[in-house]
Amino acid sequence: MADILRVAVIGAGRMGADHIQRLHTRIHGAEVAAVVDIDVERAQAAVADIPGARAFATPAEAYESGDVNAVLIATPGFLHEAALLEALALDIPILCEKPLTPDAESAWRIVEAEVATGRKRVQVGFMRRFDAEYAQLGSMISSRELGELLMLHCRHRNPDTPPGFTNEMLINDSVVHEFDVIRYLTGEEITSVQVRLGKASSKAPGGQHDPQHVLIETESGVLADVEIFVNAQFGYEVSTQAAFEDGIVDIGGDGGAYLRRGGRWGGVVTPSFIERFGTAYDVEVQAWIDAALRGEIGGPTAWDGYATAACCEAGVEAQKSGEKVAVELREKPELYS
Amino acid sequence: MADILRVAVIGAGRMGADHIQRLHTRIHGAEVAAVVDIDVERAQAAVADIPGARAFATPAEAYESGDVNAVLIATPGFLHEAALLEALALDIPILCEKPLTPDAESAWRIVEAEVATGRKRVQVGFMRRFDAEYAQLGSMISSRELGELLMLHCRHRNPDTPPGFTNEMLINDSVVHEFDVIRYLTGEEITSVQVRLGKASSKAPGGQHDPQHVLIETESGVLADVEIFVNAQFGYEVSTQAAFEDGIVDIGGDGGAYLRRGGRWGGVVTPSFIERFGTAYDVEVQAWIDAALRGEIGGPTAWDGYATAACCEAGVEAQKSGEKVAVELREKPELYS
Amino acid sequence: MADILRVAVIGAGRMGADHIQRLHTRIHGAEVAAVVDIDVERAQAAVADIPGARAFATPAEAYESGDVNAVLIATPGFLHEAALLEALALDIPILCEKPLTPDAESAWRIVEAEVATGRKRVQVGFMRRFDAEYAQLGSMISSRELGELLMLHCRHRNPDTPPGFTNEMLINDSVVHEFDVIRYLTGEEITSVQVRLGKASSKAPGGQHDPQHVLIETESGVLADVEIFVNAQFGYEVSTQAAFEDGIVDIGGDGGAYLRRGGRWGGVVTPSFIERFGTAYDVEVQAWIDAALRGEIGGPTAWDGYATAACCEAGVEAQKSGEKVAVELREKPELYS
Amino acid sequence: MADILRVAVIGAGRMGADHIQRLHTRIHGAEVAAVVDIDVERAQAAVADIPGARAFATPAEAYESGDVNAVLIATPGFLHEAALLEALALDIPILCEKPLTPDAESAWRIVEAEVATGRKRVQVGFMRRFDAEYAQLGSMISSRELGELLMLHCRHRNPDTPPGFTNEMLINDSVVHEFDVIRYLTGEEITSVQVRLGKASSKAPGGQHDPQHVLIETESGVLADVEIFVNAQFGYEVSTQAAFEDGIVDIGGDGGAYLRRGGRWGGVVTPSFIERFGTAYDVEVQAWIDAALRGEIGGPTAWDGYATAACCEAGVEAQKSGEKVAVELREKPELYS
Repeated sequence: MADILRVAVIGAGRMGADHIQRLHTRIHGAEVAAVVDIDVERAQAAVADIPGARAFATPAEAYESGDVNAVLIATPGFLHEAALLEALALDIPILCEKPLTPDAESAWRIVEAEVATGRKRVQVGFMRRFDAEYAQLGSMISSRELGELLMLHCRHRNPDTPPGFTNEMLINDSVVHEFDVIRYLTGEEITSVQVRLGKASSKAPGGQHDPQHVLIETESGVLADVEIFVNAQFGYEVSTQAAFEDGIVDIGGDGGAYLRRGGRWGGVVTPSFIERFGTAYDVEVQAWIDAALRGEIGGPTAWDGYATAACCEAGVEAQKSGEKVAVELREKPELYS
Repeated sequence: MADILRVAVIGAGRMGADHIQRLHTRIHGAEVAAVVDIDVERAQAAVADIPGARAFATPAEAYESGDVNAVLIATPGFLHEAALLEALALDIPILCEKPLTPDAESAWRIVEAEVATGRKRVQVGFMRRFDAEYAQLGSMISSRELGELLMLHCRHRNPDTPPGFTNEMLINDSVVHEFDVIRYLTGEEITSVQVRLGKASSKAPGGQHDPQHVLIETESGVLADVEIFVNAQFGYEVSTQAAFEDGIVDIGGDGGAYLRRGGRWGGVVTPSFIERFGTAYDVEVQAWIDAALRGEIGGPTAWDGYATAACCEAGVEAQKSGEKVAVELREKPELYS
Repeated sequence: MADILRVAVIGAGRMGADHIQRLHTRIHGAEVAAVVDIDVERAQAAVADIPGARAFATPAEAYESGDVNAVLIATPGFLHEAALLEALALDIPILCEKPLTPDAESAWRIVEAEVATGRKRVQVGFMRRFDAEYAQLGSMISSRELGELLMLHCRHRNPDTPPGFTNEMLINDSVVHEFDVIRYLTGEEITSVQVRLGKASSKAPGGQHDPQHVLIETESGVLADVEIFVNAQFGYEVSTQAAFEDGIVDIGGDGGAYLRRGGRWGGVVTPSFIERFGTAYDVEVQAWIDAALRGEIGGPTAWDGYATAACCEAGVEAQKSGEKVAVELREKPELYS
Repeated sequence: MADILRVAVIGAGRMGADHIQRLHTRIHGAEVAAVVDIDVERAQAAVADIPGARAFATPAEAYESGDVNAVLIATPGFLHEAALLEALALDIPILCEKPLTPDAESAWRIVEAEVATGRKRVQVGFMRRFDAEYAQLGSMISSRELGELLMLHCRHRNPDTPPGFTNEMLINDSVVHEFDVIRYLTGEEITSVQVRLGKASSKAPGGQHDPQHVLIETESGVLADVEIFVNAQFGYEVSTQAAFEDGIVDIGGDGGAYLRRGGRWGGVVTPSFIERFGTAYDVEVQAWIDAALRGEIGGPTAWDGYATAACCEAGVEAQKSGEKVAVELREKPELYS
């Protein structure tokens, strides 16, 4: 394999544009080689500030350019099947936004096509599996440290929905994440689904019945209820409470993951400055670089360094005397004002 | 200016190694061009897997290579002055780990040298200014939305200290961050410092008096007390509580920032999936790329896509009937087991 | 009506004994006049330290004593019907522990008997209606300040169950509280119930399937799911999450009630010392009285009063000087050591 | 000693009136025998609805009535000394609101007078010692389960102050509680006090400097800082954070006490229904009694008992079938509407 992925991103809409930025600015080991969109002007706009990236109207043209060795599919779901089959034929790595395809029959055709190639090439975009709190819950389930998992209570709440969001999309676009996460967490297939509509919010757009109550069962009998509520006004929430034989775990709440067991509730204390400030270091260095490339600085100045040094000197003296020690500063040069 | 920073990292110890990894894998717009360490084997080890980066024993050699246009200084503090003056003479962007230098007099020499160049070139590594919660508190102070800031209560707790950590280092390496943050938050200089030793923990190493109580005052009279406690055992904590005329704000706690005002306490609800799952998307795409470069996939498979499609079909049917609907799956191909 | 209730408590088991203590030590306007238990020795033990209270083997004997004008029924449920009818015939106030009776048919006979008397005499022991957090949630529902209530998620978790606790008792003794609370909160009757058994905990005793998932619907379509889990090991929890059109409210959690609305989460700040320390005042005065009746004191002494007076003097002086002021105390008299 | 305290309450102002209500309605083992107030009409109003209680203008008259065997002093502090000496001469139990007296010299005279009687008779009204969270913190300190206590951080915040609240009263009326609590928690006397004024809130009334920063030291060197802020607008807070050798404990926060130790944060799960609903039972029974004395009922009716019985029957049937079971109710009798 090449030592870098030259990725064709198919679809330059909301998710596509987001992935293009991600690949271009935050991800290591890959570059945006091509952006494909039937609206070729949208594709051109997307590559405008990415050196070495080109715009195409069809995937075939991108592949024919000879500069592509991987593909990220971010078109609407009904276009996935064709794009997947085309990429599978080329035997290149594929990241396909969820859903794989819009129905089980077409999804099965992808499975068959991939099985025919003899290797796994398609990764599906269920990104919750990469969220730290879901991962934490997953490892608590598989380790059985709290005994067997018995029940799950899931909340999926959006402040509101874009125009055209239908009842079917509540299942196919939103609950689909719960389907995947429940399968991922339990390591089991889902065996049945029940949906109850109940009382509807007056805030839901015409034709949409919101919220809905979904009750899901897995092979070993784990029951998972889902409140899917996509016009919940107050904000965004994706959370899960897991009831185990020996304790209760909550993830996705406003205060981070926490556990109840043996008469105590609580969570994990930040263990070191790396967990607390790791992101701040990244932001700091990036701010410095971005400013330096413009000939400026992007954070604390030498004056700040001097002033704190004067504080430290006073602090060490105060440490010895136990008294209040004044901090004396020279006049601030104009450069820093 | 060049369109990319070719950075010389000076010092390949703990912080230096951390910055090298950061520049190499997570940061956009810069590359590690050189690593400088008096222990040249350590420098060589640091560049081993970075194509295009070279190891040197002195900064001068790195600059002479002609491949460097920026410098990040991560040596112990007593070596900063010489490295800063050398870099200022070259008129290149400098990111200098805190402290700027170990005392006010040498720090002032840096200020004078930079002022002589006529432009700001030195950024100091006070990374708390880039932490989201400090930034949030800072904007609440400057907006005066809760009236005037009156008092600050700071906690700086480490589980334990490395060997050789002295009483002076409590001030110079730890409280120095509070000095910077208090100046940053209030926009004022510090006018006095008091340190009281109090009762010491038996967990502190010989010669160290820990914890200590620091009382700091700013130009407008804001009082800030600091508990500096570097052998606190339970974990890591850097937190601040700010008392305003109209409310109280806490940052750095286990449950994130929160505010008390007008008879209510609370914080900010996650507004959208971007804040909640933005990082998961990054991790997901990186996992796909890393696996793809090895010829594998790094996440959910086409089988997962198919199985969830079958769940969705059952879900939409259940939505219509209100009954429990069984999910039927085909046999799982061996490729996915 | 008399100006004091002379109560006959029927049943001196766990709940009965608890109510006897409550009436005797914490409640105003009533006295324990009689304790009735078929095990008359248990009744006698219960009245041993209550002046003026007498033990009886049957309610009839208690009523014939002429000293009773109210009754509290705390026997097992299957004995309630007879006791209720007997008391209704006397036209005295009745507090009946839940359940009213063990089935709908016998409960209906009580309703008919009470209706025949022409006035309401029977209060049922659904004590959650008197819990501050349920009351708070109830008023948020009835005020519609968050719009319409749409869904409820209830958790009812016990650490474990007493011997002989059956599957039916999960419904009749535990979920019965949820039935009452849902009716109370919504002001609507319940129209259907579904129970799903799911995966069982290995910690449940033989013959009991625990946890169970109950899905309840009210007249307007509000859906309420209940996790009833009576061997949950970690502790006790009775909590409810309510999803409204405009926000989410949680009660019964470890951190007290809280609300999410309009992008913020949080709760109510203690408004004054009365809410914070009201109970402490009660405990303080009771401690003083209990000790005084033994010829002792039950809290801070005159020495404590003197020592804090000395601190205050030093404090006022320190307030004026801004310096550290020593607190000087006289020698402590032996009386206080 | 008598088997009941017949208490004279001296002072019928705010605190006095509160104690009169407490003794009359919530406390066991004592009755209000007399209320003394120089404003005898205020005393008469206070006893109006208390059978057997009489009003007097002076303590001497109350004692001469022969009906008093204990005294609760709730006058302003400057009147305490005379009242205390008079009561000590009678050798009766005394509960004296804080402060004992307004200064150390007069407090010492009380100590001497009590020592002369040879027994402890005076209890001082520092009610925080009876608060459950302070008691919890106290037992964590004395057990040394987290090692030695090292530092305390106290917050004492009121929304605002009554007219005439002076700078001295910040110390004598508010910080005095911290003085007592610090002595109580540590079991040590206070050795010094420092007060720093800092930046003042514009919300403080003229002549008052608010907030203030108090730094207190005990015999073993424990340092306690206090933010005393009596015009804090947002609400009421009395909280303490304790730093131990092996962990950090917070009390008085909005979410109840919690502990950080060994890499985890959290608190204690409610262990049983008694802790969760004990107060609700008291309120329930009191509501029943108060209503019964008016010939009414004060809670759930027989109809509620019947309706929940019907739900339970449906529930047990649903438990067996796994299906949704309708709940059928008879028509509601008019008595319950």
